[in-house]
Amino acid sequence: MRECFELRDVDAGGRIGELTVPRADVTVETPALLPVINPNLDTISPRRLAEEFGAEILITNSYIIHGTEDVREQALEEGLHDMLDFPGAIMTDSGSFQLSEYGDIDVTTEEILEFQREIGSDIGTPVDIPTPPDVSRERAAEELETTQERLEVAEGVDTGDMLVSAPVQGSTYPDLREEAGRHADATDLDVFPVGAVVPLMNDYRYDDMVDVVAASKRGLGADAPVHLFGAGHPMMFALGVAMGCDLFDSAAYALYARDDRYLTVRGTRQLEDLDYFPCSCPVCAEHSPDDLLALSDREREEELAAHNLHVTFEEIRRIKQAIRAGNLLELVEQRARAHPAMLDGYRALLDHAAQLESSDPVSKGSFFYTSHESARRPEVLRHHERLERLAVPDSLFLTEGEPARGDEFEASWRVEPPFGPFPRALSKSYPLTAEVPERTDRAALEAAAEGVARLVAANPETEVTLGHRGWPADVLEAVPEDVDLVDLTVEGD
Amino acid sequence: MRECFELRDVDAGGRIGELTVPRADVTVETPALLPVINPNLDTISPRRLAEEFGAEILITNSYIIHGTEDVREQALEEGLHDMLDFPGAIMTDSGSFQLSEYGDIDVTTEEILEFQREIGSDIGTPVDIPTPPDVSRERAAEELETTQERLEVAEGVDTGDMLVSAPVQGSTYPDLREEAGRHADATDLDVFPVGAVVPLMNDYRYDDMVDVVAASKRGLGADAPVHLFGAGHPMMFALGVAMGCDLFDSAAYALYARDDRYLTVRGTRQLEDLDYFPCSCPVCAEHSPDDLLALSDREREEELAAHNLHVTFEEIRRIKQAIRAGNLLELVEQRARAHPAMLDGYRALLDHAAQLESSDPVSKGSFFYTSHESARRPEVLRHHERLERLAVPDSLFLTEGEPARGDEFEASWRVEPPFGPFPRALSKSYPLTAEVPERTDRAALEAAAEGVARLVAANPETEVTLGHRGWPADVLEAVPEDVDLVDLTVEGD
Ligand SMILES: [Mg+2]
Ligand SMILES: [Mg+2]
Ligand SMILES: [Zn+2]
Ligand SMILES: [Zn+2]
Repeated sequence: MRECFELRDVDAGGRIGELTVPRADVTVETPALLPVINPNLDTISPRRLAEEFGAEILITNSYIIHGTEDVREQALEEGLHDMLDFPGAIMTDSGSFQLSEYGDIDVTTEEILEFQREIGSDIGTPVDIPTPPDVSRERAAEELETTQERLEVAEGVDTGDMLVSAPVQGSTYPDLREEAGRHADATDLDVFPVGAVVPLMNDYRYDDMVDVVAASKRGLGADAPVHLFGAGHPMMFALGVAMGCDLFDSAAYALYARDDRYLTVRGTRQLEDLDYFPCSCPVCAEHSPDDLLALSDREREEELAAHNLHVTFEEIRRIKQAIRAGNLLELVEQRARAHPAMLDGYRALLDHAAQLESSDPVSKGSFFYTSHESARRPEVLRHHERLERLAVPDSLFLTEGEPARGDEFEASWRVEPPFGPFPRALSKSYPLTAEVPERTDRAALEAAAEGVARLVAANPETEVTLGHRGWPADVLEAVPEDVDLVDLTVEGD
Repeated sequence: MRECFELRDVDAGGRIGELTVPRADVTVETPALLPVINPNLDTISPRRLAEEFGAEILITNSYIIHGTEDVREQALEEGLHDMLDFPGAIMTDSGSFQLSEYGDIDVTTEEILEFQREIGSDIGTPVDIPTPPDVSRERAAEELETTQERLEVAEGVDTGDMLVSAPVQGSTYPDLREEAGRHADATDLDVFPVGAVVPLMNDYRYDDMVDVVAASKRGLGADAPVHLFGAGHPMMFALGVAMGCDLFDSAAYALYARDDRYLTVRGTRQLEDLDYFPCSCPVCAEHSPDDLLALSDREREEELAAHNLHVTFEEIRRIKQAIRAGNLLELVEQRARAHPAMLDGYRALLDHAAQLESSDPVSKGSFFYTSHESARRPEVLRHHERLERLAVPDSLFLTEGEPARGDEFEASWRVEPPFGPFPRALSKSYPLTAEVPERTDRAALEAAAEGVARLVAANPETEVTLGHRGWPADVLEAVPEDVDLVDLTVEGD
């Protein structure tokens, strides 16, 4: 077990954890949002971030500090905590982003890590190579090699009790990301940013982002604290957390405020397009959109930044509460409807249902079936796998209706879409206590048919009859041929 | 056009309207939430409702006032507005709810309407019969007749410039509800509560609620202000508004607070089950769940009631903003994932797509396809109907790919699920500017195939070829046989 990170609660791939940051002498509860502080500009002061918004950790850029003489001197003299006046943990980025934007920076990993330690950073970052999406495999592999060398260099630097992050690169190649994750995990570094996903998010490629994170996570293992680097829009936090990300950073709250952009979990709005505030944070409870438009630029920017932070931290709390209650995927279901690209992201997430299943708790509150996508959730997959291990009599009636009377069958099991068959004794156990809509759908029926097929495949000797409520012919095609079918909706059958 | 109600903006069946309430000399913007005030108990004062929460209208029960001697005397002496200290409009209920609970009340429609006028109510209510769901048709019809007689009595009472509501009953019989709506609409009464839906909501029968409202709306017509009587949970406001409801009342904010229940748009939570507040209203920004639990019963109830009101009014603002932006159905898509019964409600709503289509604007912001359900939205239906009226050449290539080269076809049209075919010239017009997921789904393909079928049926002389990207065989079965098929994903084809 990694010393600095402990898991407290889990739901799907998401978790509540505690990141112990020894140098700051604080414990940060994850999922956590790290507001990005530009040391040259500050819309909302770090002190206010801590006291008004509950920020336990923030991130600032050591490369900018290093390159701005007066700020550098001040940071070296006072230390970051005093300079910024922030009581929580401070993570520092290294300039890799500048590298990706401008192609060149003038510090090495040794230099920047030593500098970060000197200015009192609590979590430092080496200079990795943020390889963009869709480059040639050759370039991705080569740059990954460089990143990995830098991580090895970082291991050798005397960083005291500063934690050090180990970025995971590999562009859009899942095998490279997985290998990068495995390599990073094997170093003695502490925090694991999944790097270079910003271009994917900027292009609304949430599905590709999910694939990249899933691959990185396979390499990293469950006990690694994972930072989705550059992901600051609250619309996608639930999806990111469900994949297993623990840390998010937001520059968006301030950058968007400067452009009169207003964040919501359903997407970004221009202030001038709003007639009503879909929010009741202290800013929106006090002001109408017209009020804000009437403010000076500087005041409006501050109010918008405060709103943007409120919705951002609100979503983090909502996600933590969902993990505690065991309904994180229900929240992801809702967020998936914020944009078609978010739906792509959720559909991609469900491609990794087996991976999520490995961490998903065996029992939770109540499974809510709320879309066709719900049929592909890890709980359904797990039930199907369980079906292969259940003891089964020689003749079995699987039915959506009443148990068989008489002794034609040795047992009657219930059938409920999307799960398929199960012995009545399991009716009271998760996830078979699910709430499902009365108006079922084809995805649920297909999943139920798949459950029947799995059960039959595992028990070729058993004679199985299926009593179904009018399943369409092409759904029934998934049921093995030797299963007798009874349509319970046909009278006299 | 009804004098007291004007529509300002419309999206699907939802609308922003202005209800002019002459006796209060105010205009109430709808959708509006009417907090229910119990004259004997008040958790949040009416003055605070107006000033802190922006309530423009509230509702209180004239039957309780009438039956409580000291309150009655005070109301008659001071008038409701002074007694409650509320500057907005005040609607009064009549005791019908008490009738439905206790089987008997001791006032007539004349008496209670006169009393309501005397105490200064701005919108009065006759004593209708709230017939519960699922009763015999005979009982429903008989009780509806009584309600209708009461409405006719109400028309004859001298109510001055007090508006009077005309409840629509009819239990769960759509034809009775429709007839009730038509009858109420033909009276000279002003506001139209859809009555007796509380038992449906208590049983999570949102689909049946939708059918009841849809039927009532068919009778009422577009210009009637509709009150979904007793509907106070913010989770279902968007669905109710999308059906065409304009007024909601909430006793829940206060009743739930008394039981330590915390409202969210994703459902109700027990305060003791919350580790984090998924909200940033002034109450939740200031307090943690533990803070509230440490308060006295009276203080905790007040704070919870304030939170409950904040999320309730926030959702109303969000809905208004969605109507302005033309994305109300996108909001309903999200709310449909709050509970499987809400999904049933949304699926039922889409059964009435043709009814919604009649009020839905021709052009809006951008259609987001965010679920299988999106394929049944009114915009898709409208496009399919439009296909039957488009001019079509003698030979036509419908394609998900590039237009045909050479002169094999007279024209190439685009095909995009869920809409199906359209001439390229329409690509830039709503809804064909839709954002759709990359990972399409069967519902979208089926709708597109239906579009092809509609086009072909309307143009039997045209030779049609369809270039599709690997549509499954059973989806292609919906395409008429004389359409030539080209699978664009098969190489060399
Ligand atoms: Mg893509
Ligand atoms: Mg039902
Ligand atoms: Zn706000
Ligand atoms: Zn709140």
